[in-house]
Amino acid sequence: MLVECYIRSFIVLLINTGNGKGKTTAAMGQILRSLGRGWKVCLIQLFKGEAFYAEQKILTTLPHLDFYSYAPRHPFCFPEVPKQQVRRECLKALDRFATALKSKKRYQLIVLEEFNIAMREKYLTYRELASVIDTVPSNIHVIITGRGAPKQLIARADLVTEMKEIKHPFNKGITAQKGIEF
Amino acid sequence: MLVECYIRSFIVLLINTGNGKGKTTAAMGQILRSLGRGWKVCLIQLFKGEAFYAEQKILTTLPHLDFYSYAPRHPFCFPEVPKQQVRRECLKALDRFATALKSKKRYQLIVLEEFNIAMREKYLTYRELASVIDTVPSNIHVIITGRGAPKQLIARADLVTEMKEIKHPFNKGITAQKGIEF
Repeated sequence: MLVECYIRSFIVLLINTGNGKGKTTAAMGQILRSLGRGWKVCLIQLFKGEAFYAEQKILTTLPHLDFYSYAPRHPFCFPEVPKQQVRRECLKALDRFATALKSKKRYQLIVLEEFNIAMREKYLTYRELASVIDTVPSNIHVIITGRGAPKQLIARADLVTEMKEIKHPFNKGITAQKGIEF
Repeated sequence: MLVECYIRSFIVLLINTGNGKGKTTAAMGQILRSLGRGWKVCLIQLFKGEAFYAEQKILTTLPHLDFYSYAPRHPFCFPEVPKQQVRRECLKALDRFATALKSKKRYQLIVLEEFNIAMREKYLTYRELASVIDTVPSNIHVIITGRGAPKQLIARADLVTEMKEIKHPFNKGITAQKGIEF
């Protein structure tokens, strides 16, 4: 254990979870920070579609960021989408993660957006994700976002933040607001 | 109260607080999101200095963002800095906020970075900040970051997220890491 701490004197696995606002926005801020340091970054996103978040319009114009979007239509919003199709798309996203780890582009940060949701809703198992996390070299940082991070993932992560909702206007009936929520 | 809810059917005041990572990065992600919607944004930052965060290198190159930095040398890191000087700088930052609200640039988002810390450490009082918040029109969003947000501020905010530390490698003796923490 001490040896492992010594070798991994480094934050490899970061988790943004919880029921509050800020999981995705913090990951996007983190991408910007890493790009500001000249790092190469890979963003692999589930469930949102390529044009969902307004920040994507800017991020995708920046050099050194590669952006991949899978399973853009989540069954919660699109009940006609077969769950097996969502599962296949999530497996493709996982495969993209495995490929990114070995890529000649030498990413220093890989963001797995909403992968916690994929596990919570059983489109991916923790074991499937863990088998790829096992291959992450110690010079690559991985951020996984989404509410409901599995306990095993929290246990193996280096840095975990719970974005906790203290107060949210959705509870007063105000709907998601352009420019703030997406 | 109902009338006020009706007029302000809108998220005006957002707070990112708590002891975990993600308060600043979420605010920076939020700035990117708002810029992606074509909004004009004003970032007023305390205690960090203009080159502290790597994301600033990119943000400041983007159109429609104005960036102001005050009290760059926090007494925690620079004990030789007189506290009265820090107080004066914080008052200038507050004045900048008041000016930004009335600016012809018509900002739609104003971010007050680390203002919670300024109140916690008594460089600003809650009443001083509140007197300016009272003048925020309902078409401008304000985000205030920093741990230890005063209770009165939480009470009047529309959306509050606590970034809660579940696990952080600082506790294992690992220091702040370039590209991830700054």
